Amino acid sequence: MSERSEGAAMSRAAQYVGDRTLVVRDTEPVPPAPDQVRLNVAYTGICGTDLHVLHGDMDARVRRPAVIGHEMSGRIAELGAAVRGRRVGDPVTVMPLDWCGRCPACRAGHTHICHRLTFVGIDSTGSMQRSWTVPARILVPLPADLPLAHAALIEPTAVAVHDVRRSRLAAGEHAVVIGAGPVGLLIATVARATGAAVTVLELDPRRRAVAADLGLSTLDPGAVDVARYVHRHTGGAGADVVFEVSGSAAGVRLATDLAAVRGRLVVVAIHPTPREVDLHRVFWRELELIGVRVYERDDYAEAVRLVHDGRIPATRLITRVVPLDEAARAFAALEGGGEVKVLIDCGGAG
Amino acid sequence: MSERSEGAAMSRAAQYVGDRTLVVRDTEPVPPAPDQVRLNVAYTGICGTDLHVLHGDMDARVRRPAVIGHEMSGRIAELGAAVRGRRVGDPVTVMPLDWCGRCPACRAGHTHICHRLTFVGIDSTGSMQRSWTVPARILVPLPADLPLAHAALIEPTAVAVHDVRRSRLAAGEHAVVIGAGPVGLLIATVARATGAAVTVLELDPRRRAVAADLGLSTLDPGAVDVARYVHRHTGGAGADVVFEVSGSAAGVRLATDLAAVRGRLVVVAIHPTPREVDLHRVFWRELELIGVRVYERDDYAEAVRLVHDGRIPATRLITRVVPLDEAARAFAALEGGGEVKVLIDCGGAG
Ligand SMILES: [Zn+2]
Ligand SMILES: [Zn+2]
Ligand SMILES: [Zn+2]
Ligand SMILES: [Zn+2]
Repeated sequence: MSERSEGAAMSRAAQYVGDRTLVVRDTEPVPPAPDQVRLNVAYTGICGTDLHVLHGDMDARVRRPAVIGHEMSGRIAELGAAVRGRRVGDPVTVMPLDWCGRCPACRAGHTHICHRLTFVGIDSTGSMQRSWTVPARILVPLPADLPLAHAALIEPTAVAVHDVRRSRLAAGEHAVVIGAGPVGLLIATVARATGAAVTVLELDPRRRAVAADLGLSTLDPGAVDVARYVHRHTGGAGADVVFEVSGSAAGVRLATDLAAVRGRLVVVAIHPTPREVDLHRVFWRELELIGVRVYERDDYAEAVRLVHDGRIPATRLITRVVPLDEAARAFAALEGGGEVKVLIDCGGAG
Repeated sequence: MSERSEGAAMSRAAQYVGDRTLVVRDTEPVPPAPDQVRLNVAYTGICGTDLHVLHGDMDARVRRPAVIGHEMSGRIAELGAAVRGRRVGDPVTVMPLDWCGRCPACRAGHTHICHRLTFVGIDSTGSMQRSWTVPARILVPLPADLPLAHAALIEPTAVAVHDVRRSRLAAGEHAVVIGAGPVGLLIATVARATGAAVTVLELDPRRRAVAADLGLSTLDPGAVDVARYVHRHTGGAGADVVFEVSGSAAGVRLATDLAAVRGRLVVVAIHPTPREVDLHRVFWRELELIGVRVYERDDYAEAVRLVHDGRIPATRLITRVVPLDEAARAFAALEGGGEVKVLIDCGGAG
């Protein structure tokens, strides 16, 4: 761990330069402005959004060359002159949101859905580098004994916490998670931590195996009549909450089919085109369809607790760690399938 | 008003006999079983569902000849032997639902969405007759000074109260009602009573005129850029609540377009086929789509209050009263458009 507070050595960064290409380069560390801190980044997790960036899907939004990455952990290396309450060496992660504070959403207290939301690591420079300078206000302090690799899971865990909180899932209820990618697995794990019974639906046998390894009850919706299964396992009621994490039309259809009277359907996946929704069923069973986007401060606090106390099984979810210089390989591994969370060791931890 | 407690005279009933035909006939009053009461029916309102029945759309569900009708008021004429706490002459309406008490929805306390819900007046005999015998448990007592014609609006008002309650609309918020038929007008009126700003969208100029007469702010969505209007009138926020009462694909599209961050879209109209819903917008603004069906006891209590204290402008909403013998004419008047609520005077009031 580096605790130097001045005169940082060279940094190194993975830069997305367009054309599906990441280049790893030496870079100059950015000295913190008065309200900023410079971090030594330990780990950066790769998320589905990062893959979209690499594929060029977000070129309209991402200014190249771009250092992306927002699921991170690290330590404070240098404090801006006006920063209070933080010390060099403090272990931290960030909540990678920045909002305007003035739009109707911000004024209503929904800053995480600001009309002019900046997502750090997409709309501004991210953490896939050894030395990263950020506004002090986005820092989230970490328990001293939390391994920094595990801490890289806090951001995606906060997503899951937010989704489960919005669903109002309660102990004793039955939840169904459609799709067992990294987000689906985290939602299922957080849902289980609330005391709910959880069933995970996934077509891909490798992903199903990962879910089963985590002790989750899994079903192949291609092979099993899921509606009958849920009916039988809920005394004919249906699922209290369904998380649609597949992004597919079939997932949306299944969600409305499975839901109990007053069931809540949480739209987690991004559906780029409008989807047919059975509004008759929404009426008939008084269903609720609930949109969810990123997280709020409270979700982060809960995510830190869940990762810290092991209810998020970090060691099982982190299936690969790759050094920064091999960032491209890390992305390729994630795309190859069979991985859950792939971390990039950004070299700032030791 | 008839207060006889025994030996009822002949009754008279409008019967749906199939083939879009109503026949009015003399009928035998039904003596109440121990847990029943016989009512002298004062008024029965005609609802959209009754029109569907007359059109044969619900022939699979309605056993003919059928006396339909469920928006009623009247007085107790005769008490079953086991009925307590009621007196002959009491003014009453009914909450026309009957549930099993044993299914998962009933056990969860959602008896109004019972898996085996019976809707009185569709699945069983209704109130379009002078003398009507019903289970005492569905009675709702009325204030002595509430005109019985006004009381016939309590059932549809309870629908509106339920929809507004499920929307969590609060004073100072902005609501949009898409569709100004009788249900839409009642929702707009109840929404206004909560202290919200209400805008009613309606393509039909006659319906728009009725809404304007009720003092509601109205817009023609065929002529005005509604999204811009709502944007301007909410400081750029959008509508906190949108009630979709049009049943159209365009209504669903408009609802998602108009909603503010964390806006609630209430699906009031019945959409027989699946509708395209912009789930990206649902995610992006954390919208909620909320299904609503009939009402609960609390909604009835509030509906009685609202009709009683005049916040539901009954005299303006009741645009025609037709005697029972001319029931077919009443249905025709409603279908002709230009009417809001058409009541049938069932002859039991005096
Ligand atoms: Zn992410
Ligand atoms: Zn803002
Ligand atoms: Zn009705
Ligand atoms: Zn039931």
